[in-house]
Amino acid sequence: MDDNLPVEAEAATGGRRGRADRGGGAAARRAARGGSGPGTQLTYIKRKIPVYEVLDEEGLALIEKNADTVLEEIGIEFRDDAEALKLWKDAGADVKGERVHFPKGLPRSLLKTAPSTYTQHARNPERSVEIGGKGTVFAPVYGPPFVRDLEGNRRYATIEDFRNFVKLAYMAPSIHHSGGTVCEPVDVPVNKRHLDMVYSHIRYSDKPFMGSVTAPERAEDTVEMCKILFGDEFVQNNTVLTSLINANSPMVFDETMLGALKVYARNNQACIVTPFILAGAMSPVTVTGTLTQVLAEVLAGAALTQLIRPGAPVLFGTFASSISMQSGAPTFGTPEPSLVSYGAAQLARRLGLPFRTGGSLCASKVPDAQAAYESANTLNSTILAGTNFVLHSAGWLEGGLASCYEKFMMDVDQLGMQQKFAEGVDLSENGQAMDAIREVGPGSHYLGCTHTQANFQTAFYRSSIADNNSYEQWLAEGQKTAPQRANELARRWLEAYEAPHLDAGIDEALNAFITKKKESMPDAFT
Amino acid sequence: MDDNLPVEAEAATGGRRGRADRGGGAAARRAARGGSGPGTQLTYIKRKIPVYEVLDEEGLALIEKNADTVLEEIGIEFRDDAEALKLWKDAGADVKGERVHFPKGLPRSLLKTAPSTYTQHARNPERSVEIGGKGTVFAPVYGPPFVRDLEGNRRYATIEDFRNFVKLAYMAPSIHHSGGTVCEPVDVPVNKRHLDMVYSHIRYSDKPFMGSVTAPERAEDTVEMCKILFGDEFVQNNTVLTSLINANSPMVFDETMLGALKVYARNNQACIVTPFILAGAMSPVTVTGTLTQVLAEVLAGAALTQLIRPGAPVLFGTFASSISMQSGAPTFGTPEPSLVSYGAAQLARRLGLPFRTGGSLCASKVPDAQAAYESANTLNSTILAGTNFVLHSAGWLEGGLASCYEKFMMDVDQLGMQQKFAEGVDLSENGQAMDAIREVGPGSHYLGCTHTQANFQTAFYRSSIADNNSYEQWLAEGQKTAPQRANELARRWLEAYEAPHLDAGIDEALNAFITKKKESMPDAFT
Repeated sequence: MDDNLPVEAEAATGGRRGRADRGGGAAARRAARGGSGPGTQLTYIKRKIPVYEVLDEEGLALIEKNADTVLEEIGIEFRDDAEALKLWKDAGADVKGERVHFPKGLPRSLLKTAPSTYTQHARNPERSVEIGGKGTVFAPVYGPPFVRDLEGNRRYATIEDFRNFVKLAYMAPSIHHSGGTVCEPVDVPVNKRHLDMVYSHIRYSDKPFMGSVTAPERAEDTVEMCKILFGDEFVQNNTVLTSLINANSPMVFDETMLGALKVYARNNQACIVTPFILAGAMSPVTVTGTLTQVLAEVLAGAALTQLIRPGAPVLFGTFASSISMQSGAPTFGTPEPSLVSYGAAQLARRLGLPFRTGGSLCASKVPDAQAAYESANTLNSTILAGTNFVLHSAGWLEGGLASCYEKFMMDVDQLGMQQKFAEGVDLSENGQAMDAIREVGPGSHYLGCTHTQANFQTAFYRSSIADNNSYEQWLAEGQKTAPQRANELARRWLEAYEAPHLDAGIDEALNAFITKKKESMPDAFT
Repeated sequence: MDDNLPVEAEAATGGRRGRADRGGGAAARRAARGGSGPGTQLTYIKRKIPVYEVLDEEGLALIEKNADTVLEEIGIEFRDDAEALKLWKDAGADVKGERVHFPKGLPRSLLKTAPSTYTQHARNPERSVEIGGKGTVFAPVYGPPFVRDLEGNRRYATIEDFRNFVKLAYMAPSIHHSGGTVCEPVDVPVNKRHLDMVYSHIRYSDKPFMGSVTAPERAEDTVEMCKILFGDEFVQNNTVLTSLINANSPMVFDETMLGALKVYARNNQACIVTPFILAGAMSPVTVTGTLTQVLAEVLAGAALTQLIRPGAPVLFGTFASSISMQSGAPTFGTPEPSLVSYGAAQLARRLGLPFRTGGSLCASKVPDAQAAYESANTLNSTILAGTNFVLHSAGWLEGGLASCYEKFMMDVDQLGMQQKFAEGVDLSENGQAMDAIREVGPGSHYLGCTHTQANFQTAFYRSSIADNNSYEQWLAEGQKTAPQRANELARRWLEAYEAPHLDAGIDEALNAFITKKKESMPDAFT
C-alpha cells in the first residue's frame, strides 16, 4: 500500500488528512498517524470529462418512437391504486381497468415541469449534493438481506451491520451519500425497521440519505423524521430525500411503490423511477428492446410524480442486468448491461431528467477477481455514461444478496479513482510541464526534478488497497490479498469512527417519535 | 459457470462449438462435450462503437505544438547508431553529436508515407489481421521472466511455459494474435532463445506473431524464418511481423532498439514505436506533459522507419503507467494512465497511424481482486480509446514480471466481453423486439416468448469463468473462486490442445535453420 508517507507531509497537503478538522476526533488523528484513516471528504463529482454515447440520433429517435408506441398501444398497468388511475384519466389518458394507454407525447409533456438538476440537502450543508447535469453522486449498496462479515461469515444482516455500513460510508471520502437500505437489518421487526434505518443515517452520518419505500406509512414516517431534523417548512420547500421507486417490469407499477412515490412527490421529495431489469426475463433479450421498455416505464412512472406535484424532482433510473439463459441467474459486468446503461443515459439527457444506473455490481459470492472484473466493468460504464446518482457504488456482492465489508472498502478505493478520472486533463502551464521536460532532457529521469517535487503529492491517485510493492516485499509482509488488506482497513476505520455532532434536542425528538411509533404496533417479522 | 447447456444446442448454434471444424480434433470434440473447450475462433474486432475522447481541439493542438517544441529545442538522442544519425542529417535535421533536433514539421511530414492501416498476414489466412482504423487486435502478455504456474508457484519461466501460453492463445477465441515474448524462456540460452520462441509461434499456433528485438541479428533471424514459412517474395511484399520497439524514455532510442527497428522497416515489417512510460520517472507527473513527451518520442522514432523504407508500417505506441511517489513502484489501473491512453489515441488518429496501448495491466502479485480491478480499468480505457493493437491483453501479473495461467484465462473471458461490446447496439427489427413486447405485455415475463426463444443463444455474452449460480449451488460445488475455475479451465484447454497443421517440409526447413544457427554460437546466459 502507498500508505507510508510521513504524516507531516500528509497534513501539509490535506491529501490524506484524517477527519481531525471536523469534530476534532482523537481517534481519527490516531488513525491518520497510523496511515489508516480515511482521507479528506470529497464533495460530489462535477465531471469535467465528456460522456460516452453508443446511440446516434437515428437510434435514439427510433427508441423514442417505439416507446411511444408501447405507451399508446400496450399501455402500463397501475395496480390497486384508484388515485393514480384517476389522475391519469383526468390528464387525458385512456384508462381501461388498471391499464393506462397514453396519448402520444403526454408523459413527455408532463415531465417538462420536472427539474433537470436539484439539490438534495444534507444536515451538514457541506455534504449537500447536486443531482443532475455534470454532477455524479456515489451512494452505497442498497437492499441485501445478508452480509459477508469481517470474520468471513455469510449471515443475515443486523442493525449493527447497518450502522457499520453507514459509518463506513460516512468516513469514505469518495462516497457522497449515505444511501438507504445499506443492508436489511433482519433482527428488527419488519414493520419497525425503517425507523431504525432512517435514524441510523441521521445519527451516524451527516451525508444525505434515502427514505423508506416498503409501505406508504413508512414513507410518511421518513418524511416526519426529516421534519424533526430539518424543520417542517424546510422539508416542504426543499428536497432532503431521494428514494427508490422500482417498476415491476414489464410495464407494471404496484400499490406499494405507487404509495411511496405519491408520499414523496407530494412532499417535494425526489423519486428514482427505476425499471428493475433482468433482460431476458423482465425485458426483451436485446439492448434496443430493453431500452424501449425502460423508456416507456420511466415515462409513465416519472410523469405520475408531476401529476401529483409539478416540479417534484424525479430521476430516470435504470437497473440493467441480463439473465443467464442457462440458469436464469442474473449476470453483471457483461457487455449488454453496459450498452443499456449508456443508451439509457442518453435517453434521460434528452428527457432532461437526472439519471441513475450502475454501481459496483457483481454476481460473485466472494470478493475475488470475478467480483472485481464485474464491478469495474459496471462502474466504468456508469461513470462514462454520465450517471448522476450511483446507487450500489460500494459493497455489493452476490447479485445484491449480500453487503460485503471487504468489497465495500475495495469499491470505495475504486470510487476515488473514478472521481480523480472525472477531473479530466489539466492543460494549465503546470499541467503542460514544459519546464520539467527542459530541465530533465534526454536520458535522465524526473524523480527529483523541480516540477515533480512541486506536484508529487497530488499528481497521482493513491490507492488505499493496492499493493504495488516488489514481490519480495509483498512476501515479507505476509502475502496478503486485496480483500485481506480491505478487511484490515475496515477494522481500522470502524475503530477510528466518531459520530458527527447531532443536536441533543433533535436526537431526543427523533427517539421520542420512534418510541411512540414502535409502541403503536406489534412486532411483525414477515 | 454458464456451461450447462446441452451440447446439441451448442452444436446447432456454433456459439461454443469446439475446434472440431478445423483439424477435426477428437480431443477438441471431447472438450466441447464436457463444456470445457474454447469456442469458435473470432476474427479481429471491427469496432461498431464510437471512440471516447478526453481532449478537445484546443488541447490536442497545444500538445502538438509543445511536442514540436521538444523536438526542435531539446531534441531526441539516437545512441550508438551512425546510420540513424546520417539518415536524420540527410533528411534535414540538425544533428549535434547523438542529439537530433528536428525542424518543425519534419517527422510529421515524413510519416505521410506510413499506412494508417495494414494487414499482418498469418500462416492461416483466416487469422490474418487488419491493424488500424476500426480494427482492434488482442495479443497476449509480453516479456515476463517469471510465471505463476498452475500449481500456484511463482518461478522462472521455461520454454515449456512459453509453448503453453502460445497454445492457450491459439485456442482462445478472442485472442487474435499470438504475440511475442509471452514469457522469457530462461532455460534456453539468451542468444538462442529467439529461435525457439519464433518457432513456437509458428509451430503451435497459426495466428500472426511478433519478432525478436533484443539484437539486430535476432531480428534478421526472425525475418529469415518468416521467409521459410511464407516465401521470400511474400515477405518482401507483405507484412508478416509486428514487433515492439521501445523508446528509452525520456527522449532516447538505443542501439538495440534502433538495430531491430532498421531490420524490420527495411523488410517492410511493422514496428510499434512505444515510449515505455512510468510517469514521474520517465516522463513528467502530469498527463499533458506525458502526452507531449510521448508524441515527441513517437514522431522521432516512427519517422525513422520512413527514412529507411517509406511505406513500412509503423504504430504509435504508448505504454502508460504511473509510479508510486512513495515507493517508486509502477501502478496500474489508476486514473492517470487511462487519461494518457485516451489522449495518445487521439494524437495517433490525428497522425494517421495505427495505435497501440493498454491491455490487462495490473501490479498485483496474485490473480485477486486488485489484479482484476486494475486490469478491467485498463482494458476498458484501451477499448474505448479505439486502440488498434492491444499487447498484454491476457496473462499479465506483477507489473509485467510474471505471466500467470489463471489470469490468462480470466483475461481471455474479459476480452470476449469487450469483443461483444464492440459490436454496439443492434437497431434492426429483431433488435427492436417490438413483437416481444407486444406478445408479453404488462405483468408477464419474457423467458419463453417467441423472440427470446429465437435469440437466446446469441443474445448475451456467456462467461467461461463467472459463477452466476445461487450461493447454495456455489457452496455445493466447492466454493470455488474465479482463479480456481480459471485453473481448471487452463488445464482442460491444455489437455484438449491439438497443433494446427504445418507443412512437413517447412517444419523441416525451420528446424534445419534453427539447428545451424544454434551450432554457430556458444550458449550465453547473460
